[in-house]
Amino acid sequence: MPTAVKSVLPVVLLGCGGVGRHLLHHIVSCRPLHAKQGVAIQVVGVGDSSSLLVADDVHSGHCQLFKNPEASGKVIEAATTLGRSTVVFVTLNLDILLTACVTHLLLGLVLVDCSATYDTVGLLKAAVDHGCCIALANKKPLTGAYEDFEKLVSNFRRIRFESTVGAGLPVIASVTRIIASGDPISRIVGSLSGTLGYVMSELEDGKKFSEVVKTAKSLGYTEPDPCDDLGGMDVARKALILARLLGQRISMEDINVESLYPSELGPDAMSTKDFLESGVAQLDRSMEERVKAASLKGNVLRYVCEIGSTGCQIGIRELPKDSALGRLRGSDNVVEIYSRCYESSPLVIQGAGAGNDTTAAGVLADILDLQDLFQKKA
Amino acid sequence: MPTAVKSVLPVVLLGCGGVGRHLLHHIVSCRPLHAKQGVAIQVVGVGDSSSLLVADDVHSGHCQLFKNPEASGKVIEAATTLGRSTVVFVTLNLDILLTACVTHLLLGLVLVDCSATYDTVGLLKAAVDHGCCIALANKKPLTGAYEDFEKLVSNFRRIRFESTVGAGLPVIASVTRIIASGDPISRIVGSLSGTLGYVMSELEDGKKFSEVVKTAKSLGYTEPDPCDDLGGMDVARKALILARLLGQRISMEDINVESLYPSELGPDAMSTKDFLESGVAQLDRSMEERVKAASLKGNVLRYVCEIGSTGCQIGIRELPKDSALGRLRGSDNVVEIYSRCYESSPLVIQGAGAGNDTTAAGVLADILDLQDLFQKKA
Repeated sequence: MPTAVKSVLPVVLLGCGGVGRHLLHHIVSCRPLHAKQGVAIQVVGVGDSSSLLVADDVHSGHCQLFKNPEASGKVIEAATTLGRSTVVFVTLNLDILLTACVTHLLLGLVLVDCSATYDTVGLLKAAVDHGCCIALANKKPLTGAYEDFEKLVSNFRRIRFESTVGAGLPVIASVTRIIASGDPISRIVGSLSGTLGYVMSELEDGKKFSEVVKTAKSLGYTEPDPCDDLGGMDVARKALILARLLGQRISMEDINVESLYPSELGPDAMSTKDFLESGVAQLDRSMEERVKAASLKGNVLRYVCEIGSTGCQIGIRELPKDSALGRLRGSDNVVEIYSRCYESSPLVIQGAGAGNDTTAAGVLADILDLQDLFQKKA
Repeated sequence: MPTAVKSVLPVVLLGCGGVGRHLLHHIVSCRPLHAKQGVAIQVVGVGDSSSLLVADDVHSGHCQLFKNPEASGKVIEAATTLGRSTVVFVTLNLDILLTACVTHLLLGLVLVDCSATYDTVGLLKAAVDHGCCIALANKKPLTGAYEDFEKLVSNFRRIRFESTVGAGLPVIASVTRIIASGDPISRIVGSLSGTLGYVMSELEDGKKFSEVVKTAKSLGYTEPDPCDDLGGMDVARKALILARLLGQRISMEDINVESLYPSELGPDAMSTKDFLESGVAQLDRSMEERVKAASLKGNVLRYVCEIGSTGCQIGIRELPKDSALGRLRGSDNVVEIYSRCYESSPLVIQGAGAGNDTTAAGVLADILDLQDLFQKKA
């Protein structure tokens, strides 16, 4: 006997990059599984920075034209994934998107942001005003002005953002559960960058900083410009999201971030090529000395974020080799949560904290977690 | 400006022991926090094996008498916690409870089971039939007949049972999220008994088995009869819940459980006193030999459960000293989850997996997780 569909979730996806496309593949491949569970995800719109597809009739797959048709390879690929026969593209523009989605916005919608831009924040706030749900892999809307964060989380049951910290690792969900159960969190310590985790464990093995950075880049572990990772801003964004979740009314400028390169070797002073060819090697000696000094005390260096009652610190720390963070090898993320229930011994969550597949799986789990708000009337 | 109450969750609590009473305290102490989030938990009934209190008017606190008034210290204490002025007790009896709760059952109710008995399963199944929600810390209703499990989870959005495995650790929530996102779990390996975790790490330090068991008992780490822990049945129940969650249609009799004592030293053959005074010491030598044999290979012994495609095994395993399980010290629980996204390196969750406070906090988080089903009509 087929299970009756109890919940239908209409989804508009922003961002058709690696995560967005993996998400669409997961949605399609999970359809039989979700049907068994009585839940259906209907993708009614997909957009990236150049194009947007909106279906106004999800059953027939027919899509209405709103304005400025313009093709985009990524969105065409997305449409193909979804198996639609009739698709129409419109330029991505907040006003147009709002017009295009207005029917769905009023009916209830999950706006999913898998882009990597601040530009979606206006649309996300409009979605909140319409009582829609939002699910984010994109960290930027949550790490801009505090007022934006406050607005986005104002109806906390209608927002999910697990994949902004540690990809699919259940960090946000665990922190939210612990807070809701009245168990106050005193401290969160984590290694939240797979790239910097890899760099630090390679340094521990005696390798040169410059060699490790070049290897990390050649393995695809870093951004195109490795300074984007080495500067620590990505970790700072994750830490800011956790700190705000703990109730701290702070912004990026309140966070103390240690960069692994000085400004005279940074992107403002030299090209990525120059940095890799000559700049980074200038850091080898000082890094080697730090590693050795730590090792003499039985410690290792880790690039960690620490969120406590006194704010948020991010940088290299000396840690005991046998601590959860000190034991970390390779590119895994780890988060330690200290609270009344996890006081002497923290709650530890560890695993792969990056990757399109894992990040998209986290977003999909977030979307499904909203299903009770989309129950069909009996 | 006070937040409008968006969701009201009427709760009936079964089981007024350590976990149940901690839960009531948490509910009361979190009321200001929950009010800020627009959610209210109203305890409309509290019962244990001898008594039941039911409020039919949660606003006035007035409770209706149904049958057989009978006092019980624990339920009176619970009523005091909740701050009610008028309380009425009725004998705990399924028919009476159903009659007493019928109004609430029809209106929607969260039936919370913090008892440790199989006897609640009939009531829980009736609650499912009425479309009510259930939240369990009690493992037994989920580990009896497979048909009972199937019935209880048949409306999966209306049941939560995080605290049945690893207390408040987010094990069930993580497994559920991973499965829902279409990431198939291939294997779960865990150390799910704080008591046996303590015993195994003490043995590693060269202590005698009999001494470790006696110390564990004196520290309150074991059940009154330590054989209840050493037999592995509590671990087997947790493993069965995880295996069933992964879709295995198995029961307790399908699980291979290694007991740490032979039947000739068990409760059927001798008293707890005799076991502690003379029985357990007979096991010292063989245990010491196993510890040494493992140590020669750089391994340690751990009491683990392993749930894979070939079923469920529970017992002592030799594990590398530097694995997540091998590194475990003291009474922490640890769970490793392997899936497509967590293939080479598992998702690891570690922390305190026992304790009334932590278990009750997990149940409270479960109740709150149901709030979208209890939204007030606009």
